Amino acid sequence: MADLIPDIDSTMRRVVSRIETATAGLFGARDLPIYGVLRYHLGWAEQNFRPGVTDPGKRIRPLVCVLSCIACGGDGARAIPAAAAIELLHNFTLIHDDVQDRSVTRRHRATVWALWGDGQAINAGDALFAAAQLALLDTTGAGIDPALIVALSRDFNETVLRIVEGQVLDLGFEGRWDIGSDDYLRMIGGKTASLMAFSCRTGATLAGVMPELAARLGDFGRALGLGFQVRDDLLGIWGRSEVTGKPSADDIRRRKKSLPIVMLAGKAAPSDRDELKSIYARPAMDDDAVSRVLGLLAEYDVRRELEIVVADYHDAARDLLEHATPPGPAREQLEALVERLANRAF
Amino acid sequence: MADLIPDIDSTMRRVVSRIETATAGLFGARDLPIYGVLRYHLGWAEQNFRPGVTDPGKRIRPLVCVLSCIACGGDGARAIPAAAAIELLHNFTLIHDDVQDRSVTRRHRATVWALWGDGQAINAGDALFAAAQLALLDTTGAGIDPALIVALSRDFNETVLRIVEGQVLDLGFEGRWDIGSDDYLRMIGGKTASLMAFSCRTGATLAGVMPELAARLGDFGRALGLGFQVRDDLLGIWGRSEVTGKPSADDIRRRKKSLPIVMLAGKAAPSDRDELKSIYARPAMDDDAVSRVLGLLAEYDVRRELEIVVADYHDAARDLLEHATPPGPAREQLEALVERLANRAF
Repeated sequence: MADLIPDIDSTMRRVVSRIETATAGLFGARDLPIYGVLRYHLGWAEQNFRPGVTDPGKRIRPLVCVLSCIACGGDGARAIPAAAAIELLHNFTLIHDDVQDRSVTRRHRATVWALWGDGQAINAGDALFAAAQLALLDTTGAGIDPALIVALSRDFNETVLRIVEGQVLDLGFEGRWDIGSDDYLRMIGGKTASLMAFSCRTGATLAGVMPELAARLGDFGRALGLGFQVRDDLLGIWGRSEVTGKPSADDIRRRKKSLPIVMLAGKAAPSDRDELKSIYARPAMDDDAVSRVLGLLAEYDVRRELEIVVADYHDAARDLLEHATPPGPAREQLEALVERLANRAF
Repeated sequence: MADLIPDIDSTMRRVVSRIETATAGLFGARDLPIYGVLRYHLGWAEQNFRPGVTDPGKRIRPLVCVLSCIACGGDGARAIPAAAAIELLHNFTLIHDDVQDRSVTRRHRATVWALWGDGQAINAGDALFAAAQLALLDTTGAGIDPALIVALSRDFNETVLRIVEGQVLDLGFEGRWDIGSDDYLRMIGGKTASLMAFSCRTGATLAGVMPELAARLGDFGRALGLGFQVRDDLLGIWGRSEVTGKPSADDIRRRKKSLPIVMLAGKAAPSDRDELKSIYARPAMDDDAVSRVLGLLAEYDVRRELEIVVADYHDAARDLLEHATPPGPAREQLEALVERLANRAF
């Protein structure tokens, strides 16, 4: 699958196109409205279900799955069904998350529940979860041993339990101020990093490497996922609107208790902590309140400290990758992806 | 597995005990609260997560799976992982259905969303869906060929799509009066009958019969499921409180548009139809209103007509069973189950 290698952007385009072919087959022919809802969410259709392409998201997970397979000496084509399953699974969790978080916008468009109601959004997520399973169980194309498919499906569903456990923690954290950075990292370890770990581990497994080496790639994915999420939390506060497409300090405006706020609450003197809590308890967050929270974050040096955390995760990811895979173009692309994620502009 | 045969009640007890062993292993050891929620929903724990056994539901689906396997000449033990998966899947759909329908009671206890909120109920359903997959993918016990497990998992997830399609229709029917009996039967065909069909088909497949014969058992399950649901609709209106554990004419009181109401709306003269609609449009349903709806149902002979529909489904089920399986104790138990479901007291 040398055609997947030229550069990271063209690799991504090719992976995406192959994933779309693989997934379109699952429900492309069904004309019930629920499949229109899924196509809308995946960025393939407009709200009226007519075809139309919009921002489908970053698609990092399927990309690292295919690249991990190639970097471990495998044929990237073997990882396509799994990569499609991973992307569908990720999107199933987004549909349900948006219901739970009452998020009205996703990728610059209205969310599924905002358009069709909670009940149908629950249905859409459930259907996409089943479609993800079907993508992974696809036996027509890649010629994978059924025993391996069963093992991957087991790992896939264990991963779902980790994702749900993370989401349960996340919802449970709401309204609480006794959450520490460790709790928060455990939460994103389930909610974000476990699927990234699965993606890399599965790519390696499909390349036929020994389980220990596949586990190492899984550790790489976990480090990449944790670094990605913490950096996302930094961007949610200090990212410029032109870059993020959201209002500045959006996470503060939405009173989200992302890692910077959790860390600030842990570090701040009692009086500052009380002030933070009282600001977050207000019914609305005006510009003065946002400024004050930003001031507290600066005072306690939260951003610099978390940038070190992010850098450490990315260093760990680079190390794991270097020791687990031989040099070559696929590893270079994974390294380039690590750099890109590590240096996403503010 | 002759020990599964003595009589239908002891068979059910044995199947249930084996299912509990199989499923407890999936999340019995995990001590996170979400698994307590699942144990509560499954009837194995109290609201405080302490062990305690309450009504776990009828468990017809896993029972017909195991009995179909034995009736087709197979070893019932081979069907236990699939039967466990089926019961878990059914319970996942109940958790999400209760959120969608705002049902506060299930099996005489508070529903998951009523106790822990919509968000955690969505999570609990998602986790149970993953656990159901894991139960089906269990390869430790029954010695089933991995290629067969992959085929069953595909059928399982296709069945989930049928269930969700039915649920989408059900939610879409709300507030509409232009739904006919055919629409309604298509809806319960997905929502109820498709899993019953999967249960019987899978039992037969695990017995090693030819696909055509397994499909015949699937048709048996579909007829059984449709008959079961239509009879459930009859009981929801004409069932005595002592039998159903619910207020009399409960479905009318809850303004549920079950099949008798759909059929009445289709048959009634315009003025009666308008009266029915105006009664259903009222904010509350008093005893006079309930009596009037019961009067209209009697006037148009709806109950007798639907009893014929139920009898036809059960006759079809008996026929299919007789032609698809040899005489024997397992078939006798399936026949006894058909009789029991066909004659559930009013």
